[in-house]
Amino acid sequence: MSGTGFELIASDGQARRGRIQTAHGSFETPAFMPVGTAATVKAMTPEWVAKTGAECILGNTYHLMLRPTAERIEKLGGLHTFMNWPGPILTDSGGFQVMSLSELRKMSEEGVRFRSHIDGSYVDLSPERSMDIQRMLDADITMAFDECTPFPCKKDVAAESMALSMRWAKRSKEAFKERNGYGLFGIVQGSVFEDLRAESIEALTEIGFDGYAVGGLAVGEGHETMMRVLDFTTPQLPKDRPRYLMGVGKPDDLVAAVARGIDMFDCVLPTRSGRTNQAFTRRGTLNMRNTRHKEDTRPLDADCSCYTCTNYSRAYLNHLVMAKEILGMMLLTRHNLHYYQELMAGMRVAIEAGTFAKFQTDFSAEYTSGDIDEIDAD
Amino acid sequence: MSGTGFELIASDGQARRGRIQTAHGSFETPAFMPVGTAATVKAMTPEWVAKTGAECILGNTYHLMLRPTAERIEKLGGLHTFMNWPGPILTDSGGFQVMSLSELRKMSEEGVRFRSHIDGSYVDLSPERSMDIQRMLDADITMAFDECTPFPCKKDVAAESMALSMRWAKRSKEAFKERNGYGLFGIVQGSVFEDLRAESIEALTEIGFDGYAVGGLAVGEGHETMMRVLDFTTPQLPKDRPRYLMGVGKPDDLVAAVARGIDMFDCVLPTRSGRTNQAFTRRGTLNMRNTRHKEDTRPLDADCSCYTCTNYSRAYLNHLVMAKEILGMMLLTRHNLHYYQELMAGMRVAIEAGTFAKFQTDFSAEYTSGDIDEIDAD
Repeated sequence: MSGTGFELIASDGQARRGRIQTAHGSFETPAFMPVGTAATVKAMTPEWVAKTGAECILGNTYHLMLRPTAERIEKLGGLHTFMNWPGPILTDSGGFQVMSLSELRKMSEEGVRFRSHIDGSYVDLSPERSMDIQRMLDADITMAFDECTPFPCKKDVAAESMALSMRWAKRSKEAFKERNGYGLFGIVQGSVFEDLRAESIEALTEIGFDGYAVGGLAVGEGHETMMRVLDFTTPQLPKDRPRYLMGVGKPDDLVAAVARGIDMFDCVLPTRSGRTNQAFTRRGTLNMRNTRHKEDTRPLDADCSCYTCTNYSRAYLNHLVMAKEILGMMLLTRHNLHYYQELMAGMRVAIEAGTFAKFQTDFSAEYTSGDIDEIDAD
Repeated sequence: MSGTGFELIASDGQARRGRIQTAHGSFETPAFMPVGTAATVKAMTPEWVAKTGAECILGNTYHLMLRPTAERIEKLGGLHTFMNWPGPILTDSGGFQVMSLSELRKMSEEGVRFRSHIDGSYVDLSPERSMDIQRMLDADITMAFDECTPFPCKKDVAAESMALSMRWAKRSKEAFKERNGYGLFGIVQGSVFEDLRAESIEALTEIGFDGYAVGGLAVGEGHETMMRVLDFTTPQLPKDRPRYLMGVGKPDDLVAAVARGIDMFDCVLPTRSGRTNQAFTRRGTLNMRNTRHKEDTRPLDADCSCYTCTNYSRAYLNHLVMAKEILGMMLLTRHNLHYYQELMAGMRVAIEAGTFAKFQTDFSAEYTSGDIDEIDAD
């Protein structure tokens, strides 16, 4: 094959059950990709990541181009070899993080110039440079270089930003080196405006990509607005290509987005939460610094089969986070990623069985978005 | 058996090969015990600790009595259950850390009063309280409560301090609850003075302990002085009981001390070094922040079979420590503990084979105490 492959295995309503083939193996969708920003999923070994059920991870172009640099990673055999992750890797284009992390950036038609947060040097990023970096990283899935439209945003600004991203998408496609098993995904922009999203999709499908991402969401618009945008966006996306909702999200976001036909997700939430004392359970999140855990011999989730829940009590996890022990971050991250992957696996099974609506109902009945410390005191 | 058991399997010169039996299983000596200060060997899971070859770990009474408290750990089933380490655990008496970590301490014949570094409250520690805490922690090996004599120290001060520790040793023995497989070790004091050490040993053997520790060393006296003290101390210790050199040490300290009849060690060096970018190899230590590693595809040690050396390059480890990634600490700690355990295993084999002198010669020929970044540039 040229590009990545996508097999649609089953559908249930708009929800889709599929499989994506890449140069480094395939992965099942709907998929949640843990974020491995700086060539490591923080506080995890690659084997642990795989044990949670994750099959594809995400790397950040912005971080890696600055340190250790894409050139060095290429020289060292690519990101898979470098970080000991043999499976599929998707890299973002760097655009989003330039906007959110770098200082003194200057935008132009050509691309963006910014100052490195590491050594203050000037760095240029453009569609061509982003494609080159992602090739050097050996990403199985390369993301087109785009501008992440700010939120909220007036329509004329959103239109202009989207149009620029579409011109950059075309340049990305032209610069992308075709290789078997390596795919390029376009990114739909247009903020919360239905006609702009439609226009963006038309532009992208005209260019032609291996997959389509919905960008510009998870930037503070909230669950309802995000779903409203998906409601008018995903039905217009090509059915024979994977759809990826970037930077999303909370468990209830994932379920609602899968219901709207999304196939792929990435988010720092499970990993970052694991380093900030928060544990996900099917009922909601637990703040492990809460003193009510201090003598609780139960696991985080009695029904969870992860390493953390199999071996450690809430009391011990409370102790570790109070003592600021690294093992606390390791164990909570491992549990949180396991929870996310179990959630995805549950959705995959339900879609194949044609019971996704029931899955959604059951999930919603049990899950509370937010902290359950108050209501979980059995 | 009452107390812990000790089986002397072989001797080679003064070096001894043995086995210690406890309520939670046996461990082979000479043994190095990783330090699990706050109920975790930092940045390691218990399974990882076991995989390095460690069979017995150390817990710190001072830290655990303050947080989460010995009472809570007892209530939660003891330290083994709490931290998921089913094997033998030795706890120190708390005395050393009260001296080195706490503020506003006040010594008396009764014991020591100090302020908690966590909440500023007044805390009392005495031989009786230390025994009670270590019992609540469910330590397989309990250490007698002693005063760690400062270094350097005038002889009259050292004599007085040692005499106090001997009175506390007697009170420790009286307060210690005998249980099958649970042992109490006495601690020899007397600073660098031969006659004081002899006097201390006489006092301790008169009381009778399951093992004898050499205390008051690794406090800045240096390798030569430490070995000189062992030269006149270990030959006087009972041959049928294990000997434990507390808080030691560097690899060359371990080899030289085993040659002088020491059976057990503990030290934060391999774990702390793992969190401060330092890797142990059979040739000496590597500073993983050194830029010369940045494109080095070799493992830390080509002959090392540990997880880190099997899967990761120096270049990747350099990247992780430069990016301050937790995985860097996890991988370096794992390697360092593996190195320490391999060193101990090598000594055990050599003693059984009667080739310990050759082992020492080979070790010294290869090992450089200190950084080898300059000389290791193959």
